[in-house]
Amino acid sequence: MTLAEKILAGDVRSAARLMRDIDDGIGSAWAELKRLYPHTGRAHVVGITGPPGAGKSSLTDQLIAALRSEDLTVGVVAVDPTSPFTGGAILGDRIRMNRHATDDGVFIRSLATRGHLGGLSNSAADIIHVLDAMGKNVVLVETVGVGQDEVEIVRTAHTSVVVMVPGLGDDIQAIKAGILEIGDLFVVNKADRDGADRTVRDLEVMIEMNAARVGDWQPPVLRTVATKGEGVAGLANKIHAHRTHLLQGERLARFEENRSALRFEELLRDALFRQVHLHLGPEKISRMVRAIARREQDPYTAVEEILRQMKQEKKS
Amino acid sequence: MTLAEKILAGDVRSAARLMRDIDDGIGSAWAELKRLYPHTGRAHVVGITGPPGAGKSSLTDQLIAALRSEDLTVGVVAVDPTSPFTGGAILGDRIRMNRHATDDGVFIRSLATRGHLGGLSNSAADIIHVLDAMGKNVVLVETVGVGQDEVEIVRTAHTSVVVMVPGLGDDIQAIKAGILEIGDLFVVNKADRDGADRTVRDLEVMIEMNAARVGDWQPPVLRTVATKGEGVAGLANKIHAHRTHLLQGERLARFEENRSALRFEELLRDALFRQVHLHLGPEKISRMVRAIARREQDPYTAVEEILRQMKQEKKS
Repeated sequence: MTLAEKILAGDVRSAARLMRDIDDGIGSAWAELKRLYPHTGRAHVVGITGPPGAGKSSLTDQLIAALRSEDLTVGVVAVDPTSPFTGGAILGDRIRMNRHATDDGVFIRSLATRGHLGGLSNSAADIIHVLDAMGKNVVLVETVGVGQDEVEIVRTAHTSVVVMVPGLGDDIQAIKAGILEIGDLFVVNKADRDGADRTVRDLEVMIEMNAARVGDWQPPVLRTVATKGEGVAGLANKIHAHRTHLLQGERLARFEENRSALRFEELLRDALFRQVHLHLGPEKISRMVRAIARREQDPYTAVEEILRQMKQEKKS
Repeated sequence: MTLAEKILAGDVRSAARLMRDIDDGIGSAWAELKRLYPHTGRAHVVGITGPPGAGKSSLTDQLIAALRSEDLTVGVVAVDPTSPFTGGAILGDRIRMNRHATDDGVFIRSLATRGHLGGLSNSAADIIHVLDAMGKNVVLVETVGVGQDEVEIVRTAHTSVVVMVPGLGDDIQAIKAGILEIGDLFVVNKADRDGADRTVRDLEVMIEMNAARVGDWQPPVLRTVATKGEGVAGLANKIHAHRTHLLQGERLARFEENRSALRFEELLRDALFRQVHLHLGPEKISRMVRAIARREQDPYTAVEEILRQMKQEKKS
C-alpha cells in the first residue's frame, strides 16, 4: 500500500510521515501528492494572520475547540518564523494547542520557515492538500508575520481572518493597509484592553473606504478575548457565513480556479528551475556565479545565455 | 545616450525613471540594468528590519542624517506593505524622511509590495543595483515586517540591522528566534521606555546561546531613541565596524559570491517561467488550470507533462 492509500484509509501516522517528507523536500512525496490530489477540494481553508503579539495562536486554539463542538474535524498548519536552530523558542505556543493532541478529529502540523526549495508557500500548500485528503472539514492556516510569503499563503485560503489588537502603535496603519485587501473577516483580539473601540472603528472606516473593492461581501469586524474564549463562537459562525457566501453562484468555482492557477504557477516555476539547475550542473553554476560576483559578467546576460542555449538545443 | 549612461553621468531623473520602469516591470529596464551592472558592488548595503511598531522609519531617517554628517552619500529603498490601492495610509512615514528631499547626497525610493512579477526581492535587488551604480556610498534597505520575502531581502545586505522595541509581548520570542540568524547588529529602539533593559538582556542571552553559529562577529545590542536621535551615531559607527570586519580576509568576496548566487537564481527562475509561460500561451494555461480546479488533472502531473514536452521538442 502506498502512503497515499494509507492516508486515504485514515492512517494518521502515514499523514505525519508524508508531511515530514514534504517539509524535508523528499522527492517521493511528489508521487504521493499526485495520488491524493483527486481527493482534495472539500476542506474549507481558513487563513489566520496578523502582526506579532495579536494572539493568533490562542485564537486558533479556541477556534479548534469551537469547531470541534460542532463536530467538524480540523486540520491546522502553523507557519512559524523560527529556524531549526532556534525552534525551541516557540514551544510555548505549540504546547497551548496540545490539549487537542488526544483528539482524533484534530491534526496539527508546524511548518518551520527555513529555506524551503520552491518557497514556504509551496510546502504549506502541499500540507493543506494532505489535510484536505485526510477528510478534515476545516483547515486552519496560522501564519505569523505579515510578509509577502505569508500573504501568498493566506491568498489561497477560502476565508482569510485578519487578527488585530488594540494599541499596536503607528506602524500598524501600514499593516492594516496591506492587510485590508486580503481580509474576509477582521478580529480585534484582546478586546478587553483599552483602545479596542478605536481599533474596531478604525478598521470599519478603512473597510468602508474600500467598499468598492470588496464587492458583495462586507467584511465584519469582530471582537474576541481569545484567552477567555470570548467571541470565538461568533467567529466560527462568521466563517461558516463566508463559506455559505462562497457557495452561492460561481464564486467557489472561480475561487478554485484562481487557487489552482497560483498553485500550478508555483509548481511550474520550481520544477523548471530544478531541471535547468540539474542540466547546468553545480560546476558550471559556480563558475558563472564567481564571474558575476567579480563583475566580469552580469547576471542578466548570464540568464539570457542559458535561455538561448536551451533554445538552440531544442533546434538541433 | 542610454538611461544607464545618463545615470552613470549623475542624472538623478534618469535614475528615478529606471526605478519606475523596474517597479512597473517594463522590459527595457533589463538592458539598462545590464549596462549598470559592471559599475555596481561598491555600495555598502545595510538592511533594516524588525516588527511593526519598532520605529524603523524614524531610525532610518536619523541614520541618513548621521551618515550625511560623515559626508557619505546615501540611497534608501523602503519596502512597504501597502498596495497601490491604499498607499496613502503610510504617507506619514515617507514625509518624515522628506527633510532629506533637497539633499543631493540622498536618494529615497519606496517600493510597494504589490504583485511583482518574479517577487518583491527581485525588484528590490534591481533598485539597489541602480543606487549602487549611482555611486551612493551606503544603501539602506528598510523592510517592514518579518516575512520570508523580507528576510530574503535582508539576506542580500552586507550588514543586517534588526530593530526591536521594549514590551512587544510574548509572540516576540518567535520573531527574535527567526531574526537572530540574520542580525549583524541589534537595536533596541524606544530605549527610554519601560522594559528596555530586559529586552537588551534577552537579546544578549539569545545571541550568547547562538554564539557557535555567529562565528567571529559578535552582534552587538545597541540602544536608540530614534525620535530624539539618541544612539544613532553609535549605530553608524557599528555599521562601519561591521564593514571593516567584512573587509578582512576573504569575507567580503565570499559574501559577494553568495549574494550573486541568490541574485542569479532569482533572475533565472523568473526568466525560465516567463519563457515557458509565453511558449504555452494563455489559452492552454487556462485550460490546464480549469482541469486542475475541477480535479480532472493534478497540478503535479500537469507540470511533468510540460517538462516532458520541452524535452521532446529539444530532441526532435
